[in-house]
Amino acid sequence: MRHHAASSPLQSALPTDLDGMYGQGFCFCPSPNPQVSLVLSQERPIDLYELEQLCDAVGWSRRPLRRVRKALENSLLVVGLWRHDPRLPRLVGFARCTGDGVIEATVWDVAVHPLYQGAGFGKALMTYVIDRLKEMGVERVSLFADPGVIDFYSAQGWELEPQQKRCAFWYAP
Amino acid sequence: MRHHAASSPLQSALPTDLDGMYGQGFCFCPSPNPQVSLVLSQERPIDLYELEQLCDAVGWSRRPLRRVRKALENSLLVVGLWRHDPRLPRLVGFARCTGDGVIEATVWDVAVHPLYQGAGFGKALMTYVIDRLKEMGVERVSLFADPGVIDFYSAQGWELEPQQKRCAFWYAP
Repeated sequence: MRHHAASSPLQSALPTDLDGMYGQGFCFCPSPNPQVSLVLSQERPIDLYELEQLCDAVGWSRRPLRRVRKALENSLLVVGLWRHDPRLPRLVGFARCTGDGVIEATVWDVAVHPLYQGAGFGKALMTYVIDRLKEMGVERVSLFADPGVIDFYSAQGWELEPQQKRCAFWYAP
Repeated sequence: MRHHAASSPLQSALPTDLDGMYGQGFCFCPSPNPQVSLVLSQERPIDLYELEQLCDAVGWSRRPLRRVRKALENSLLVVGLWRHDPRLPRLVGFARCTGDGVIEATVWDVAVHPLYQGAGFGKALMTYVIDRLKEMGVERVSLFADPGVIDFYSAQGWELEPQQKRCAFWYAP
């Protein structure tokens, strides 16, 4: 499925091979600044150092890169939000899912760089994630929402604690 | 790793090839009834019809078996609790996990047949699940607890809603 047809006025001005850069099924994000093109892609490979910089920028603790690499390899879906540049796109947002791809999927590590927050890119990122999971035929998507983002998710149709479910975690010693 | 050495008085009386029946790494559950041997295994294949009967017994809604098959194939870990019988063990409990096997794992579909509840088998099942995830090196395990089982999990060291996290679900239309 192609999502990017006629979705950005920049596209026709860009001679770049966008499929080659972002893979099949990428899409442009609506952007309030016509000088800035943002692209969502599930195929463009994530550079682990760039992902680490993004995680630093949103204040997450670092993990060994070899573990992050394996976690991404074993994820059901990995999505990057890229600030488009015909030479070197920059990773400015990220999300991934684990799951069985049929009944359950769980969203982890949703991040948008602080410089790009407040412009609807987080919502576009989540819509893109859900659309990909819909295409797979996943029945139910879950996530654990931090207090500051509960309104963000409930405004997008996420049900908070259905059937009074509560989240529980066990941490490796 | 072998867990079953000398863990059941029945074992020496059973000429059965238990490894052949339950795979490597199975373990006996402590049982209040010496006539009944319960075994936990991550390798013995799950018969989908038997799993459906178990789900019926605990009151879960049915799903198409082909979807259940695919979900089990795509799971990180699938554990059966078996009432041992040298000819035909019966599935009396179940749990599975999705996840990346490194950073995150999520537990789903924990079930113990009503006839076998209240004897500590659910706790043994969860301990077995956590031990397997520990062996993989998973950092964090998560689950969504129904109201009736919150005490069950918190008594086993699960942290309820750490950092005020709340659970959210999106359901396919």
